[in-house]
Amino acid sequence: MMKDREILAAFDEVAKLRGWQSLHTPKNLAMALSVEVAELGKHFQWKDESEIFALMKTESAAAVAAELADIQMYLTKLAVVLDIDMDIALRDKMAENRRRCQIELPSEGFNER
Amino acid sequence: MMKDREILAAFDEVAKLRGWQSLHTPKNLAMALSVEVAELGKHFQWKDESEIFALMKTESAAAVAAELADIQMYLTKLAVVLDIDMDIALRDKMAENRRRCQIELPSEGFNER
Amino acid sequence: MMKDREILAAFDEVAKLRGWQSLHTPKNLAMALSVEVAELGKHFQWKDESEIFALMKTESAAAVAAELADIQMYLTKLAVVLDIDMDIALRDKMAENRRRCQIELPSEGFNER
Amino acid sequence: MMKDREILAAFDEVAKLRGWQSLHTPKNLAMALSVEVAELGKHFQWKDESEIFALMKTESAAAVAAELADIQMYLTKLAVVLDIDMDIALRDKMAENRRRCQIELPSEGFNER
Repeated sequence: MMKDREILAAFDEVAKLRGWQSLHTPKNLAMALSVEVAELGKHFQWKDESEIFALMKTESAAAVAAELADIQMYLTKLAVVLDIDMDIALRDKMAENRRRCQIELPSEGFNER
Repeated sequence: MMKDREILAAFDEVAKLRGWQSLHTPKNLAMALSVEVAELGKHFQWKDESEIFALMKTESAAAVAAELADIQMYLTKLAVVLDIDMDIALRDKMAENRRRCQIELPSEGFNER
Repeated sequence: MMKDREILAAFDEVAKLRGWQSLHTPKNLAMALSVEVAELGKHFQWKDESEIFALMKTESAAAVAAELADIQMYLTKLAVVLDIDMDIALRDKMAENRRRCQIELPSEGFNER
Repeated sequence: MMKDREILAAFDEVAKLRGWQSLHTPKNLAMALSVEVAELGKHFQWKDESEIFALMKTESAAAVAAELADIQMYLTKLAVVLDIDMDIALRDKMAENRRRCQIELPSEGFNER
């Protein structure tokens, strides 16, 4: 699994060569994330789920994968710029999701299984 | 760095308990990504960059981190559902970004440095 | 049908009272549009179409209507800030859509009917 | 100002010719809105406000106007599909915004001016 620091090194290398570093502010990165997610949505819109799976068997699959890669790069960069430790953020979020399950679904909660 | 399979295990555990598994289709996950990215945008909108950094020193930082974690979880899940190998997708994308740099910025390209 | 100038008058009145006028830049308004559209998406996500129509028979219908109103207000304001005449923009777009139809669907085009 | 029914007539005419009518469900239209708003964001991302105003003096202005028109068309269509009266939605929203101002800004509220 690719390490965050590899992603960041490649991202920052291109940014440096192009002189884009000052553009990578939280707000711009959040906007870029939103644009990339919508580019992904563009591949899927107007299609039902079976048509999406069919699309993934065509050469468009590479374009969809490229959108996911873009989202991952901007997300990883944004976390660094905001000084967020994604491991902690993920563990906290996963713990919260579990807690909510235990509260809202007590009879089939995690401890009872 | 948290492994994709840990993220997926936690995500799927909650989905199973809640009976949400059939909802995790590509289109729904893409829509969820778009909603989470906008929730992030909600923290930043109307603020300039210095106000965003100030926000990150308040208790809102945890909420922002939780949005990033949500985005990561949906992204990781979507890649699995679409059968996309994120490592390959990232390497391909990074190679493409480098190639574009070399074409568009030949005099300061990667080989010359 | 509500006039654009009524929408703008109400929007600007609140903006003035709150001192928000300087915030209504193109980029901030575009981000606000994206946030409002995602708030709308939040009402619909994980639901199928019949569940969405069922939702519109509950008290949530008012919340959905409020999101649409927000989108309309930000869109109308953004057009003014960018000095775009929406009537011209709409007529141009509609003409383009028709033209594309005639090119792509010649045998069942507009003239032949 | 263009009437909603003109927008809808043109939208539905193209949809009918292309056989797209069954695609215009609430969820698909909400997703289309989100894609169009992001296409707009794509014109603005990485730019500061002065660069955006400069962009609007180039031939890109027509492309930005076309995005706004697309957003307006999908919004108007979505309102109809959801059976939302946009005039009522706008009046309700504007009244709510005013009410909030009066509560949050009592000393400079609407009655005192």
